[in-house]
Amino acid sequence: MNEFAVGNKYNLGEIILSENDIIEFAKAFDPLDFHLDPEIAKKTIFKGLIASGPHIFNLIYRREWLPRFGKTVICGTGVSNWKFIKPVYANQKITVELSVLTVNPETKIGGTAVSWLFEFKNEKEEMVQLLHMEVMHKS
Amino acid sequence: MNEFAVGNKYNLGEIILSENDIIEFAKAFDPLDFHLDPEIAKKTIFKGLIASGPHIFNLIYRREWLPRFGKTVICGTGVSNWKFIKPVYANQKITVELSVLTVNPETKIGGTAVSWLFEFKNEKEEMVQLLHMEVMHKS
Repeated sequence: MNEFAVGNKYNLGEIILSENDIIEFAKAFDPLDFHLDPEIAKKTIFKGLIASGPHIFNLIYRREWLPRFGKTVICGTGVSNWKFIKPVYANQKITVELSVLTVNPETKIGGTAVSWLFEFKNEKEEMVQLLHMEVMHKS
Repeated sequence: MNEFAVGNKYNLGEIILSENDIIEFAKAFDPLDFHLDPEIAKKTIFKGLIASGPHIFNLIYRREWLPRFGKTVICGTGVSNWKFIKPVYANQKITVELSVLTVNPETKIGGTAVSWLFEFKNEKEEMVQLLHMEVMHKS
């Protein structure tokens, strides 16, 4: 099977973040009150602690995408359309699906430009985030 | 001065990443050979160790953007058009400019939707990265 065929889909499994996971990530990268303090978060429009936007993608890229596709990477060229649609709460189950949106030969450097779509859904099958990641792979 | 006026510009200073900074970030989030190992990186199209794409934005968001604007954040709503245009090498000086692209009242939740543009340039004034960050602020 050619990994880089338009329409290919990969199930990247589940993410469940604990309160502590959310707080530790936020301390390092996004120390806003509603990512750090459950009591303050209760008084916001979210009514509870929520994960920093980039947290779930950072996790799944490292845990699932890199082991599958990292060996063929020449370079990343960008991220686009990253939509934070719904908040992600502690102990909420998020499922992640990956698909190949576009594939284009890049003859100058002998690579293949792939646009990957990541979709993150909650237990009600509602989309909570999506993003496109553009990567140049070895052909 | 209204912080959220279209066209406002802010100088966010400089970034200089050491080899060690690049390697430590990559170990945690993006463990690809050309972010981890200077010898392997020499044999790639980059001819040397380069920073993980998201590294410089993560750093400047935490160090410069949050202290200035974090207090007024209701929520982030997305990132778009993040282009990794040129590689960022160890000990290279990168200057960062921020500007306000668009400002729209969001009357339903009493906020203001701001689209921020981050531009990262090298010492030759070449753009190495740019991105748009969408944030809902308190009005």
